[in-house]
Amino acid sequence: MTVSLDDLPIRDDLRGQKPYGAPQVPLPIALNVNENTHPIPADVAEDIADSVARAITGLNRYPDREFTELRESFAAYLGHNLSAEQIWAGNGSNEVLQHLLQAFAGPGRTAFGFAPTYSMYSLLARGVGSEWIAGTRGARFEITPDDAARQVREADPDVIFLCSPNNPTGTPMSLDVIEAVYEASRGIVIVDEAYHEFASADTPSALTLLPGRERLVISRTMSKAFAFAGARVGYLAADPAVVDALRLVRLPYHLSAVTQAAATAALRHSETMLRTVAEIVEQRDRISATLAALGYDPYESGSNFVLFGGVADPHETWRRLCDQGVLIRDIGIPGHLRVSAGTEEETTAFLDALARLRDE
Amino acid sequence: MTVSLDDLPIRDDLRGQKPYGAPQVPLPIALNVNENTHPIPADVAEDIADSVARAITGLNRYPDREFTELRESFAAYLGHNLSAEQIWAGNGSNEVLQHLLQAFAGPGRTAFGFAPTYSMYSLLARGVGSEWIAGTRGARFEITPDDAARQVREADPDVIFLCSPNNPTGTPMSLDVIEAVYEASRGIVIVDEAYHEFASADTPSALTLLPGRERLVISRTMSKAFAFAGARVGYLAADPAVVDALRLVRLPYHLSAVTQAAATAALRHSETMLRTVAEIVEQRDRISATLAALGYDPYESGSNFVLFGGVADPHETWRRLCDQGVLIRDIGIPGHLRVSAGTEEETTAFLDALARLRDE
Repeated sequence: MTVSLDDLPIRDDLRGQKPYGAPQVPLPIALNVNENTHPIPADVAEDIADSVARAITGLNRYPDREFTELRESFAAYLGHNLSAEQIWAGNGSNEVLQHLLQAFAGPGRTAFGFAPTYSMYSLLARGVGSEWIAGTRGARFEITPDDAARQVREADPDVIFLCSPNNPTGTPMSLDVIEAVYEASRGIVIVDEAYHEFASADTPSALTLLPGRERLVISRTMSKAFAFAGARVGYLAADPAVVDALRLVRLPYHLSAVTQAAATAALRHSETMLRTVAEIVEQRDRISATLAALGYDPYESGSNFVLFGGVADPHETWRRLCDQGVLIRDIGIPGHLRVSAGTEEETTAFLDALARLRDE
Repeated sequence: MTVSLDDLPIRDDLRGQKPYGAPQVPLPIALNVNENTHPIPADVAEDIADSVARAITGLNRYPDREFTELRESFAAYLGHNLSAEQIWAGNGSNEVLQHLLQAFAGPGRTAFGFAPTYSMYSLLARGVGSEWIAGTRGARFEITPDDAARQVREADPDVIFLCSPNNPTGTPMSLDVIEAVYEASRGIVIVDEAYHEFASADTPSALTLLPGRERLVISRTMSKAFAFAGARVGYLAADPAVVDALRLVRLPYHLSAVTQAAATAALRHSETMLRTVAEIVEQRDRISATLAALGYDPYESGSNFVLFGGVADPHETWRRLCDQGVLIRDIGIPGHLRVSAGTEEETTAFLDALARLRDE
């Protein structure tokens, strides 16, 4: 009587697949999905709640399909003389990236990224029927302009993902790599700056490269530095013509009035919302130093997490950390694990738990 | 210097297209997109706001990817012995339908509906690379079981949309049509009950057909009867195996913590939220009667809107109603217009404005 997935006329390319997603294990110390573990300050939360409460009284009507006020807020927040016509947003940056792939990739086209990189890129690309092409990185996951340009020229992809800094490795990316890839390509070049706020202060954003480059897109998220993962708000800046293309593929009214109100309110408090970034960076650097002292091999990180090698049995280490109430991430690179920088207390709990494993 | 869409490497099938969507004209009487024009009752809005305020304090964390509490709430609301494993939801029913198409249609497959029907079906189907097959209806947009089964057998589609009652015509659909289509098909049969709550009280839901039919899906929305269009919440009930398939194609964390909290709170007040339905149905029937008296040709409607023929120049009538502050919908059927049933005052404003046009 019980029906299974295999009994249904599901697409052949989905047969046998497992859903994407980190295990949702309820543990006291959760450092597995690169969240900002600092809660939203109480006064900001209250102001957001007030804005949302006002939106709720009008929920019987469809939201502004063009989310004009929110786009204006993003433009003002990003600076670089951007205007609202250059801004797009979605329910998480995954949706923004999906819109880009629907408009510029899709069946019969190709998408490219330098592996290992954010695993959703290839899933999103395959989801719209595109072929995924994995480029390569150096021994420490770095990319050089010449090598990047050569690989892109050879692959000739329709959409290129440059994760800057890279997830899950944390590797910073210099602007000359982006410029070289843009010159070597004919497709859309997406620089995913999801973790940009955690880069060192002198790291320029790819937004500085936008003028005159109509195929360049810089995507961002409110999930990380902004401590807004639960609200699901990603956005991008690009030429207005790119934004026009995304209007052709987005679902009508894709951003709810509640999401628009919450994100617009949060952006009014961007300074306060971003106040935890320095503290998180401090904990990240402490993780790197301590991991090295414990004999692990942490990689350079411009983000809010650290990838480290030298792990004899990643799954076993992951499991034993779980036993101590600490959840980190096994991202499937042999000999490696990834940990998000938490509050000072959470970071201490992780480092102590790991040290105990070494002592056992 | 200015770049246009045509200068970008956009997909060929999108070239020259215009974005979907009714004109967003700010007029005092908006009866164009089948919203529930009754605002959410103040005490309910307050309780929803309280729930959302609690969710906001935890927005730094990702939401529950499985939106378990919300699915339990939908199962309880729908009744018919449904359980949470049979429920799925998305940001509007459009996203729910897109998930279904991504899992069961996609490139190289086909989707089918009886035209004219909800225009997003064909757009969603083409958006995932599927071919759209348009079936036909009778002179009053009705469908009979035998003819429906014959058309479906011939087309042999992978996904079938049955809009019950149909948008934009309002036509009710009897369960024997759904049973006949199911028997005649091998693909997924989606019964879109977006407007079901406005059908006459003795109209059974297709939910009654669910047991033993693992390819049957009933989709619903909170946008219409529930007066929750701005919150963007659509959902469906189906076999748990269908829900498993949708987990493979949904974006991770696609439903925000705010959306989950707002919808769960609204469902606690479903009786109050649905209290306006009877009043809307009354206004709908008044529209039909008055339109007939004015010499127009209104179609039978089981929804919160009325399609009417006998309009000599739909665009001109639409424009002249706009001039009087009344916004309705030109849905592109020659000689026809569509109007949503508003409050008593809004409905009167529309009917009076239309009567004035006849008298001019």
